[in-house]
Amino acid sequence: MKNIKITIEYDGTDFSGWQYQPGERTVQGDIEEALKKLTNDAVRIIGAGRTDQGVHALGQVANFHTSTHLALRQIKQGINSSTKDDIYVKSVVGVGSDFHSRFSAKAKVYRYHILSEPSPLRRRYGWFTKHKLNVSQMRKVIPYLLGEHDFKNLSVQEEEGNTLCTILHMNLTADAGFSIIEFEGNRFLRKMIRGIVGFMHDVGRGRFEPENIHDVFEGKIRDLYFAPPHGLHLVEVKY
Amino acid sequence: MKNIKITIEYDGTDFSGWQYQPGERTVQGDIEEALKKLTNDAVRIIGAGRTDQGVHALGQVANFHTSTHLALRQIKQGINSSTKDDIYVKSVVGVGSDFHSRFSAKAKVYRYHILSEPSPLRRRYGWFTKHKLNVSQMRKVIPYLLGEHDFKNLSVQEEEGNTLCTILHMNLTADAGFSIIEFEGNRFLRKMIRGIVGFMHDVGRGRFEPENIHDVFEGKIRDLYFAPPHGLHLVEVKY
Repeated sequence: MKNIKITIEYDGTDFSGWQYQPGERTVQGDIEEALKKLTNDAVRIIGAGRTDQGVHALGQVANFHTSTHLALRQIKQGINSSTKDDIYVKSVVGVGSDFHSRFSAKAKVYRYHILSEPSPLRRRYGWFTKHKLNVSQMRKVIPYLLGEHDFKNLSVQEEEGNTLCTILHMNLTADAGFSIIEFEGNRFLRKMIRGIVGFMHDVGRGRFEPENIHDVFEGKIRDLYFAPPHGLHLVEVKY
Repeated sequence: MKNIKITIEYDGTDFSGWQYQPGERTVQGDIEEALKKLTNDAVRIIGAGRTDQGVHALGQVANFHTSTHLALRQIKQGINSSTKDDIYVKSVVGVGSDFHSRFSAKAKVYRYHILSEPSPLRRRYGWFTKHKLNVSQMRKVIPYLLGEHDFKNLSVQEEEGNTLCTILHMNLTADAGFSIIEFEGNRFLRKMIRGIVGFMHDVGRGRFEPENIHDVFEGKIRDLYFAPPHGLHLVEVKY
């Protein structure tokens, strides 16, 4: 059996997220169907991050085990010729048998796009907010987030388990009409980035002070706003 | 009567172009309908450039004459609240009675986006070509295009008349997977930029030499390829 690693870009608009669900169009489902056509084998692929409905990816990573004799470039061509144009497999490489796209990942990079003015050309990939945001206030939240914290109260955690995450790097760049918040971390909980962006947005519009992040961590602030999914992009998975 | 100038961004994907056509969804038609609702008056707007079906705009300009007593910001809000989110009026200003969005324009800036790899996130706004392009060969075409030339044979000219155009500035930037050709000119004929991009693309893939532009100007090369509309963006109209 070979272990194959693929890197995928997708426009999340028309998907019910990454993860396979019967009766729904998902990125995992579409790629598995393409692989089944290609290899005549039911293949289960493992994604590095299970992006939610509407979330985009520039560099999602997945791996799968297969006994196919097809060359890597034939696999790439094969998947790309049978998926629609909102999915594109950018690279296909062979990896060691112990490689696991999720467990082997060292870090993930996400970006969240905020539009301060409506933009027809960017509307699919960024969140327009009508609030005027104070960017320097928003930046003051970053130092409180860096390092290891329990992000349980900034996410929607369905499973029990470890909710400690380490944010390695964050960056907020603001352009005319357009801001990007970048996150690099060892792991992210479900909706965690959208929770952080929602909090930062509330700081930017004056609803909270940057220091209130402690109240969120401690569960004293419970009415957290989650920024919508279509502004979120999984940019890179690092190994 | 007031003369009002509006600047508009639109995603051209779902429009049959700028210009009003009965029974078709057009940008002009949608804005005129919004203005009619707002002012109870049938208003004809004049666009600076009649972009074709599928062409996008970051800064299209139009003007119209009206006797409305609405404030400029009410007009802006009124249009934006009744058009769909693939149109956005970015600014509304009052101008002198002799201002004409097309005849008063000094120059227009367009950009054409070329993708050298398929990209789900950019596919709506750039043209993917499977040909490997030699960018430095393509750049050699630029000096031949600058200045005043008769572009009749690089366009689809339906009307008789002046086909002399002056290209003031051009620029080709190439990034990983993504190139942009920028044009600034006093005027552009119908499909002229798509004709130029088509020729430059043929140079980039080795079908023509840069010097062959003379043969196109002189009508000796007739099988010109026109690059598809969805890579084209009207960026700015200068007055």
